[in-house]
This record gives sequence, C-alpha cells and structure tokens, in this order.
Amino acid sequence: MTFLTHLESTADGSKHAADQPQTVHDGKPLVARYDLAAVGAAVTRDALRARPETMWRFAELLPIREAQPRASLGEGRTPLLRCPRLAAQLGLQQLWIKDESQLPTGSFKARGMAVAVSRAAELGIKRLAAPTQGNAGGALAAYAARAGLECWVFMPDDTPLVNRLEVALHGGHAFLVDGLIHDCGAIVRQGIERMGWFDMSTLREPYRLEGKKTMGLELAEQLDWHLPDAIFYPTGGGTGLIGMDKAFAELQELGWLEEPRTPRFFACQSSGCAPIVSAFAAGASRGADVPTPHTIASGVRVPKALGDFLILDAVRRSGGQALAAAEERVLEWMGWAAALEGIALCPETATCIGALQECVANGTIRPDERVVVFNTGAAQKYVEALDTELPRLRRDAIDWDRVAGG
Amino acid sequence: MTFLTHLESTADGSKHAADQPQTVHDGKPLVARYDLAAVGAAVTRDALRARPETMWRFAELLPIREAQPRASLGEGRTPLLRCPRLAAQLGLQQLWIKDESQLPTGSFKARGMAVAVSRAAELGIKRLAAPTQGNAGGALAAYAARAGLECWVFMPDDTPLVNRLEVALHGGHAFLVDGLIHDCGAIVRQGIERMGWFDMSTLREPYRLEGKKTMGLELAEQLDWHLPDAIFYPTGGGTGLIGMDKAFAELQELGWLEEPRTPRFFACQSSGCAPIVSAFAAGASRGADVPTPHTIASGVRVPKALGDFLILDAVRRSGGQALAAAEERVLEWMGWAAALEGIALCPETATCIGALQECVANGTIRPDERVVVFNTGAAQKYVEALDTELPRLRRDAIDWDRVAGG
Repeated sequence: MTFLTHLESTADGSKHAADQPQTVHDGKPLVARYDLAAVGAAVTRDALRARPETMWRFAELLPIREAQPRASLGEGRTPLLRCPRLAAQLGLQQLWIKDESQLPTGSFKARGMAVAVSRAAELGIKRLAAPTQGNAGGALAAYAARAGLECWVFMPDDTPLVNRLEVALHGGHAFLVDGLIHDCGAIVRQGIERMGWFDMSTLREPYRLEGKKTMGLELAEQLDWHLPDAIFYPTGGGTGLIGMDKAFAELQELGWLEEPRTPRFFACQSSGCAPIVSAFAAGASRGADVPTPHTIASGVRVPKALGDFLILDAVRRSGGQALAAAEERVLEWMGWAAALEGIALCPETATCIGALQECVANGTIRPDERVVVFNTGAAQKYVEALDTELPRLRRDAIDWDRVAGG
Repeated sequence: MTFLTHLESTADGSKHAADQPQTVHDGKPLVARYDLAAVGAAVTRDALRARPETMWRFAELLPIREAQPRASLGEGRTPLLRCPRLAAQLGLQQLWIKDESQLPTGSFKARGMAVAVSRAAELGIKRLAAPTQGNAGGALAAYAARAGLECWVFMPDDTPLVNRLEVALHGGHAFLVDGLIHDCGAIVRQGIERMGWFDMSTLREPYRLEGKKTMGLELAEQLDWHLPDAIFYPTGGGTGLIGMDKAFAELQELGWLEEPRTPRFFACQSSGCAPIVSAFAAGASRGADVPTPHTIASGVRVPKALGDFLILDAVRRSGGQALAAAEERVLEWMGWAAALEGIALCPETATCIGALQECVANGTIRPDERVVVFNTGAAQKYVEALDTELPRLRRDAIDWDRVAGG
C-alpha cells in the first residue's frame, strides 16, 4: 500500500534507508519521502471516498509496509465543526474547529503514535521510550500496549495528573523526574544503549510526523480540496504544524488541491512559554531556550523544540505569524468555545482563540477569511487547570434564588 | 428523513403525540415508534454504505424532523476493536470492544444527548435540566451549548471531579447536592413548573433512548448484520441496553439481520450497587432500592432505575443474565484491557470484564462464542479512582535498577 522510498535529512538533504530503525542525522530530524508520481498513478481523490473514514485511508502516503498497522485503536476521521457563534464573537464569518479530542486517548497525539508505534513494531523494535509532559505519554503507552511492545515514559513532576495516570494504567513504565522536559529527554538518551530503548521523542524518530500529517490530509479532503485561508495551531514541539505543511506540499505535488495557495499558519503559544514567537519576532531561524516556562497549557510548555527551525520556516513561507496569547486568559477562552459551541478546548488550543481574536482586531485576518482552529486535546484531561468550586445545595432546603441565578 | 409516527407508553401501550414535548405516562417511559414498512421501502442496507460514518446515517430510524440536527458535535462511528490478547486472557476466541470513549465528551452519553437535545430544540424547548453523577451532565451541557439552550445539572457531591468540571466549563448551571442521584432528580422535578425546565432525566424524555439505540444499529452494520452471541454491557439506568434491544427489534422487523436470533444480553453491575442483579436472581420484575450504594463506577451507582422492568425484560427475553462483579477488582480489570489491548476502560465497563471472566469459567459463555463488550466511557475521566503514586527519579542521580524494574 505504501509508496515510501527513503528518509531525507533536514540537515543536508542526504538520503537514508527507511527500512531500518533511524533517528536524527547530524542532530536534525529525518523526514519520510514517497514516490509521489506512483501514488498519483495508483490512487485518485475520488477513489478515497469508498474507503473507511479513518486516518489509514491515506495509506499510500503513510509509511506502513504491512497490510494492517500493528497499533491501531480505530482512529476515526475527526470532525470539522462549523462554529457560527464563536465566529461571531470573534468577528469572523467562517470558522471551523477540527476536534482532535475525539481520537483514542483524547488527543491528536494518537495520530503520531499510531503510525510510529506500528512502524517500530514492523521494524522489529521491542522497547520504546519517550519524555513527555502531556498527552504524548498516554498515547505512547496505549499504542505500545496495543502492539505488544514495552515502553518507558519520563515526565516532569508537574505533568498533569491525568497524563501521569494514563501511562501507568496502560502498563507503561512511568517515572516522575524533578526537572523539565529536556531533563526527561536526557534520561531517554542515556538509556538507549543501556536499556535497549528506541527513542520516540518528538522528531527524533521519523514517523510520528507522518501520523500528524494526516491532520492536513483530512482537512483538505473535508473542505473538498479547497484549503482554508488560515490555520491557527497550538505549537509546542511543532510536529503537527510541520506535518500539515508536509501534507499540503505532498497534495500540491499530487495535483489534488483546487488552488495553488496553501493556508497561512499561525503558530500559537502561551505568553508563559513562547520561544517560537520570540524567534519569529527576532527574525531568528532557531528559538532561544526559555529558562522558566510556566503555563497550564502543558503541551506548549516546550522551552526548546528540536524542530524549531522547521516550524519557523513553515510559518514564514506560509505568510503567517507566531503569536503568544496571554496565559492569564487561557481559561476564559476555553469557556468561550465550550459555552458558545459545546466544544471543550484544551488550554493549548485556547491560545489559538486569543491569537485569533488579536488577529481579527488588528486586521491580520479579514472577517471573510476561512479560518480553521485545531483542538488538539480534550479539556477533560486538564483537571488541575479547570478546578473550580461549584455551588452547593441542601436537598432539604433548596435555595431557589441561587438555582435561578447560579 | 425520519419516519417517526408516535410515542408509545410502556405502561399500557397507549399512543401519544410525538411532535410536542412529552415525558413519562403513568410513571413509565414513552418510546418512539416509526413506520418501519416505509423505512424499508425508502432505504436499504446497501444504501447506508454511501453515507458518512456518523450516528446520523440511520436518520430514518431517528426522531429528528429537521434536515440537520441542531446539536451535533460530529459523532463518529465508534470503532469495534478486536481484542485477541484480552480474549486469550479470558479464555475466548473472539472478543471485541466497541469503544464509545471516542465520542464527543468522551462517553456514550453523547449519543443520547445529541438526539434528545436536538429534538428538544426543534420542539421549541429552551431550558433543560437533569440529575447526574457521571458522564451525562457534561454531555448534556455540551449539547445544550451547541444548540444554544440553557441547562441546569444537579449532582451528588461525590460525583467524579471531571464530570463536575465539564458541566461548568460548558456554561451549564451546575450544583452539588448533599444526597444521592434520586435527591437530585427530585430537585429537577420540583423545578419543572417553577423554573420552566424540561426534564432530561434518563427515560423521562423519550429520545435519549433513540440516540443510545444507534449503538445497536452500528454494531449490526459493523458485523455485516450478523449479531454477536453475547453482549456484556455495564448497566446503571440501562438506557443503552434497552436501546440496543429496541435497535435489534427494529432491524429484525426491517429484515436486515442475517439470522433471526439476537444476542444474549449480560447486564453488568458492581457488587457495590447491583439492584438489577438482585432482582434478576429473585425473579422480580422490578429492582429494590439499594440504600447505601458504593462503587468507583459512578455510572452504575443507580440505586433504583426508572426502566428497571425494561432492562430485566430485555435480559430475560434474550436468554442472558444480570451479573455483579467484585467492586474491589474493578481497577485490576481496567488494567487488563489497558495493558493487553491499549484500551482504557471506564470502571463501569471493567465490571463487564469481571462478569465475562466468570461466565467463561462456569461455562455460561463457550470459548468459541462471539462476544462484544461496550466501553461506555474514557478511563481518563475517573481521576480519583485511578490516582496512584508513580515512582520518582532524581535527574542528577538516576537509579537505573529502578528504571529497569519500574
């Protein structure tokens, strides 16, 4: 099914064999390349329609060699939801949220791990390891369990509770570390030789990116191959944004897009940790380290992303921007989408609402532009951030005024 | 699209108008009836294939009159996952889990609320209210927000934290009550006149059942219209089980099933609250009240279900059983499915694993029978139940023996 040919270095463009375990080259990621001419000859846009509505419908553009992926939990196509009330609140006419919270384990991390764990399994890898402070750990542990592989997960000790618990529930070897995400990454790298681990860190293996790419492929198909004008995307490690950029380039080369232009990417971060925003503003090609990151949006609490140069390049080529939204308003923006549209955004995605509000206000986004926001995870997984006291009633003496007003 | 004709009383079979707000009749639920002959003339099994993979593909068998449901969050068809490792652990050859945790708000409650809130909106109802101690509240609040309706939710003060928080996030009027679920229900009924509420309690309005019915319709289609031998289903209010029973009856009448027989239903509860199990064992038609229910499976902590007689009837007609699984083993069974298959079962569904284990051991289920378990919600929403201490590592002095063993 796949037309995977080789891996290409983002450091120097050199080619690397795809059918053996690979990690970075010269400290930079490898990306999967396909024989797109052969893909175009083998499948058409119309032929896709008859396939099941899962991420695997794009099999020719995914790296899995076996007939069935070894790690699948039934990843459905996530809905692209029109949001007329939230659009009006923001001064827009056409706004969609693509709701990734409906994937297995409740986040977009499922896409990357489904592909990467399946590929690791078919390459004979047995022991996986990764650092995480958010949804990646639970997804890795779930897909490793599904494929019958072992996994080790290292998390900063302020990782959200639900993310910690789901790793353990799936039988992953879960550890808390008194440090930040890069301290956890350092442990993983120390264990590669000692423990026989394969490093599943963001962009240190090539296939999580391919899974994330399906967000872009799905979006294009759901919009009948007319891409939107702008995409607002919460950006931590950046794999989703880099993956969508890659998806659009592949679709462009296949001739499947209705127009040549691709969307402007808006990489959104919290003011509590915004290295990509700082680098973008400074015209730098790489981000500077953020020494004391603080945000409830744990998925964007990434002080230094391995793929920062790829994120910045994609944002600049697209004509977009990198924007920070005020950390102290994250819960407010979550509430807007939840109360106006019934969509429980994760805190990371709430930064997109803030950034979008600013862009409409300052004219960066025109009211008639078609805008898509990605909700990368379920708000329900952020218990500590949401924690609020609810009013209490006594069953034998109900305060009806309070009920009416509460 | 719909072929809804009327509502029928489960008390006396009397007919009631469908196109106005309705609640119970003579204290018992009303159920929706359709012109099935007309459905059969209008649509075939094969015609369904071209439709989007959502619960709305069964539009003729759903009660929505308008072209589009007013409250939809993109409910995808939930995956039916083969579970070979868990099957082997239980001594079975063919076991599937239908994973309802991938629905909006992370539980099967989305199905019922999507239909019931859409129907309430098109009937002109503005204010919804319900008691809940689990996932129903978040689903109601989300769908009410999506449809632009107001909602009030009353929860016992030991309702799981995530369930409390999601109601508030969606802008629902959320209250904690010092009592059990029926105390909360009593508040709702007191507010019907005073507050202008429409009562959305389980089986007190007719359309949540129709949404739940789609679990059965989907299952039949996913198994190519060959129903399984047995369904294990966690049973609190029982709407899911009653809904599937209704689905299979409608499919039978349409002539869409490949065989005349329907599955044996196994209604599963926790030993900490098992009124249906007690009634089944006693040969009673209704359950006795459980004075002090205690279980981490909040969704089955229902001391007295309005539809208990419908549940017991469906289980008995099917040749199945009602079974209690040991409360103290719920976390263990959750761990089996999570570690063997990568599927994070809610505690309610874990009772099904326990009941199934017992049924295989005592010969009630033969090893070659085809068994389906419904995972009604995401384990991630049960933070308090899962809470476990993870081992800690010091970044500057890693204990590698602990890492290897942990």
